[in-house]
Amino acid sequence: MKNVDVRQKVLAANERAAAQLRRRFATSETLVVNLISSPGSGKTSLLEASVPRLRREARVAVLVGDIATERDAERLGRLGIPARQILTGGACHLDARLVARHLEGDEFSRLGLLFIENVGNLICPTSYDLGEHFKVALLSVTEGDDKPFKYPGIFSRASATVITKIDLLEHVDFDLEAVREQISTLNPGGSLLTTSSRSGEGVDAWCDWVRARLSVRMSSGG
Amino acid sequence: MKNVDVRQKVLAANERAAAQLRRRFATSETLVVNLISSPGSGKTSLLEASVPRLRREARVAVLVGDIATERDAERLGRLGIPARQILTGGACHLDARLVARHLEGDEFSRLGLLFIENVGNLICPTSYDLGEHFKVALLSVTEGDDKPFKYPGIFSRASATVITKIDLLEHVDFDLEAVREQISTLNPGGSLLTTSSRSGEGVDAWCDWVRARLSVRMSSGG
Repeated sequence: MKNVDVRQKVLAANERAAAQLRRRFATSETLVVNLISSPGSGKTSLLEASVPRLRREARVAVLVGDIATERDAERLGRLGIPARQILTGGACHLDARLVARHLEGDEFSRLGLLFIENVGNLICPTSYDLGEHFKVALLSVTEGDDKPFKYPGIFSRASATVITKIDLLEHVDFDLEAVREQISTLNPGGSLLTTSSRSGEGVDAWCDWVRARLSVRMSSGG
Repeated sequence: MKNVDVRQKVLAANERAAAQLRRRFATSETLVVNLISSPGSGKTSLLEASVPRLRREARVAVLVGDIATERDAERLGRLGIPARQILTGGACHLDARLVARHLEGDEFSRLGLLFIENVGNLICPTSYDLGEHFKVALLSVTEGDDKPFKYPGIFSRASATVITKIDLLEHVDFDLEAVREQISTLNPGGSLLTTSSRSGEGVDAWCDWVRARLSVRMSSGG
């Protein structure tokens, strides 16, 4: 069997598991957001800044993927929400079966909103459907303004791109307009948000983006 | 064939191609350094800052891996050295056969020093031997001080970890001592260097690290 066949088989098996997850999330009326970025772009920090605001409207939980350490789940658990670490044992992305296995138990059964913080990686997580409603890409201003065209897979698929760490904008060369142009080329319908989890700037707008999708789901009955 | 068997077969084929590269580099007396980091940690910027100093001592060239765009090779070509882009077409790492194919041609035949800037990814490139003498990991202070333990594969294998963007240290929470402890646990023999390609701080020490390995090779005849 060729490597490309094996990859297609793996992705097809993932699609089947993702379809099951999607049915489960529809039944439980859970909005699911899959956060994807480079290591250190601020996925956990954005959740720390926004979950305390969003939990007023919905029961929120988080699954966090990493190669090693339980550190991010510990940080998010301190918010008082269900937060579970998924250790991939070396794999560079989460897959739908891993997610399903980590959703067992009562505390993950009646959620309004589930964030899945993927493994820090701009490439591999892009191909693996986790049954989510939306992929969201994060890009910190310290990573440089050339990234959307260098990593078109994720930036063309993400429903929103969240620019993070804008409190550092004055200290780095980062052309926000250049990023806006790349995103609008790759993904004309995608949203672009700017945030600083440190100063709080833009966090309300990000929460509003999530709330809008939450209310659509609730009013449509899942 | 199981997925794990396929992966082992792929890695074994890569090992054979890497062994050929290693023989080639020994014959040509070329020191080869494989740079690995997250997207936007500053691999290209570190090369822009250090190549003009290192080229006084050795004929330098660069291979640059990316998913898409020729941007990094264009930036490095402006230094007046051979710089060739390797587009992986989606793959999250370089492999030895891709490197071999891109070393063809006169300008890559009599090099003293070859930098291979890998695809921006802290995970996948770790497993693929490119026939290099040293892997070097970069970690920018804006990515956070928890990364070595979260990505132990690369930080345990890298002969040096280069902390980048230290000009931003005062604007972020980054505990350099915590990183030093993680590196010394994962990789007791590894070097830790701190640099800012922007201010130039630490770039001489990084060049000295490379020079020391260059002179060992030259004095040992390859």
